[in-house]
Amino acid sequence: MKSRAAIALEAGKPLTLTEIDVQDPKAGEVLVRIVATSVCHTDAYTLSGKDPEGLFPSVLGHEGAGIVEAVGPGVTSLQPGDHVIPLYTAECGKCKFCLSGKTNLCGAVRATQGQGLMPDGTSRFSLDGKTLHHYMGTSTFSEYTVLPEVSLAKVSKEAPLDKICLLGCGVTTGIGAVLNTAKVEPGATVAVFGLGAIGLAVIQGSVMAKAARIIAIDVNPDKFELARQFGATDFVNPKDYSDPIQQVIVDLTDGGVDYSFECIGNVNVMRSALECCHKGWGESIIIGVAGAGEEIATRPFQLVTGRVWRGSAFGGVKGRSQLPGYVEQYMNGEIKIDEFITHDMPFDKINEAFDLLHEGKSIRTVLHF
Amino acid sequence: MKSRAAIALEAGKPLTLTEIDVQDPKAGEVLVRIVATSVCHTDAYTLSGKDPEGLFPSVLGHEGAGIVEAVGPGVTSLQPGDHVIPLYTAECGKCKFCLSGKTNLCGAVRATQGQGLMPDGTSRFSLDGKTLHHYMGTSTFSEYTVLPEVSLAKVSKEAPLDKICLLGCGVTTGIGAVLNTAKVEPGATVAVFGLGAIGLAVIQGSVMAKAARIIAIDVNPDKFELARQFGATDFVNPKDYSDPIQQVIVDLTDGGVDYSFECIGNVNVMRSALECCHKGWGESIIIGVAGAGEEIATRPFQLVTGRVWRGSAFGGVKGRSQLPGYVEQYMNGEIKIDEFITHDMPFDKINEAFDLLHEGKSIRTVLHF
Repeated sequence: MKSRAAIALEAGKPLTLTEIDVQDPKAGEVLVRIVATSVCHTDAYTLSGKDPEGLFPSVLGHEGAGIVEAVGPGVTSLQPGDHVIPLYTAECGKCKFCLSGKTNLCGAVRATQGQGLMPDGTSRFSLDGKTLHHYMGTSTFSEYTVLPEVSLAKVSKEAPLDKICLLGCGVTTGIGAVLNTAKVEPGATVAVFGLGAIGLAVIQGSVMAKAARIIAIDVNPDKFELARQFGATDFVNPKDYSDPIQQVIVDLTDGGVDYSFECIGNVNVMRSALECCHKGWGESIIIGVAGAGEEIATRPFQLVTGRVWRGSAFGGVKGRSQLPGYVEQYMNGEIKIDEFITHDMPFDKINEAFDLLHEGKSIRTVLHF
Repeated sequence: MKSRAAIALEAGKPLTLTEIDVQDPKAGEVLVRIVATSVCHTDAYTLSGKDPEGLFPSVLGHEGAGIVEAVGPGVTSLQPGDHVIPLYTAECGKCKFCLSGKTNLCGAVRATQGQGLMPDGTSRFSLDGKTLHHYMGTSTFSEYTVLPEVSLAKVSKEAPLDKICLLGCGVTTGIGAVLNTAKVEPGATVAVFGLGAIGLAVIQGSVMAKAARIIAIDVNPDKFELARQFGATDFVNPKDYSDPIQQVIVDLTDGGVDYSFECIGNVNVMRSALECCHKGWGESIIIGVAGAGEEIATRPFQLVTGRVWRGSAFGGVKGRSQLPGYVEQYMNGEIKIDEFITHDMPFDKINEAFDLLHEGKSIRTVLHF
């Protein structure tokens, strides 16, 4: 079938709006009509060419929501008409990882997903007979996309798809990092580095966890007002200080924070986030994706004296098990999503959405097919 | 009073056996007659001059056991005749750290301890009228030493002091890192880097935690037999492989270990220890003390994909609360100590004990006053 899509023909160029060919779903696969998708920094990172694992030409996009159009042989958990959120972190329920009870990093489709292919090693996308790669197992920048059954969370049909699409990445990642990875407890002090969508979601998660003090840190003070609306209590612009930011935070908190979150992808900030943690128990969680080959560093004394360094992917959330509950919480007013959406546009304006992201003018732009 | 002691007059020189002057304990302080002490790599590190915080002249030694000789005003929990183990990690029970329930890193005497002084900012040691520094708050290389009350664990009088002195550092540090810091669970796979006293104690702790597989790693294969006696199940000499050791361990364990422990103090090994952990849940614990200014590094992807980087000091053990129980476990045969002691010597031969340590010929030498 034909599908409207924005494809990444080569690195560093705007997406090309065109009509591509999408094959029928094979065994264990599902054809989804994407209703809304957003643009995330990870899409921009891959498009920039800096991602060494980036493949071209490809169909990017990983934060979307849609409706099942058709299912391939053997698919039992979904049927046409179901509302779904694509998952770049699958949940098969059967692999070593899913069965461990310790992680959401399912191994079922990981290898082929990283190669930009479906689990059988082939692509469902093509343009003029030339194969296009899938991306993160989701490829939400095509109106019709094909995913493995294990990469789709079935959610309530009552929920607006042009809102809950944000649960496909940013909102879930931030909230989950607080609740699942850090397990922030009531009364805790939290530092959040970077006030994009992830950082705001971390603030939201910290409010849900009843943190007493939430310190919002960004070099762009324009971000502080929204952070305040989400529940941050303190606001720090590193440019206002000559001391290293970790020292500023330690001084501000009588010894450091209980939990810190790096929501940027800057390895120097990752170090600051660790070192602003309280001796004896402070934990720092890396969420941001660093550039290729970049490394984090610190003196081991930081860890020997009780700090803990962790990371979080998709907020430690098991998509098929937990996203339906996140959608319910949104419907009940317990999770904010609308507040992240600064712009709505028709899908055709997707390159403008990238521009807004790069300029720091949007938190999230939702694109409507 | 006069006391036999081995003092560190300057960096890089053998200790000087002499008689020093020891003042009476002041308020909140206790005079202890050390019966036995061992020599640990940390003493050797400071003596070498590489420790930027090392102070000279000083009375080193931090792994000992003795008998209370006299108490200063206000001391209520100890009296002459009590058997005690000196603690370089105090436990006041009242500070922010002790009350947190999250760490053993008591803050009560930390600042002055780091300056080689008693809490009132002065020293109790002198030689020919010249002040000698305390060391790690313990200074067990003097037959008579003075410590803060909060830096002494009162233990059973039934226990042999020339054995349980090892609970003052190495044995407790290794076992505690497994039980308190990592919280290794039954059936886990563990990797232990470095098979000195700490590494062997980690193996012992892993056996106590019912780990299923304990991989002992050292570049000196002479260490493997003792590791086997302590309960290690696999033995790896990195020199036998051309691949990086983390890759060797990952291959050996179908994806990596559940827990790893760095018991050397080598920042490159710390990286290997982290990276040999299983994706999704593996945790690496740094126990070894790195050289001044050295840093650990890795790609943040290692943490984002679920590995956790921690450290442990004195095994996370609260000395006054927990060491009496460790002594009981030793008396009941539940903790091995005798097996660590490869040499016994009179105190006067302390420089030979250092030589044995440097040559890798001893695990622990116990010196008897």
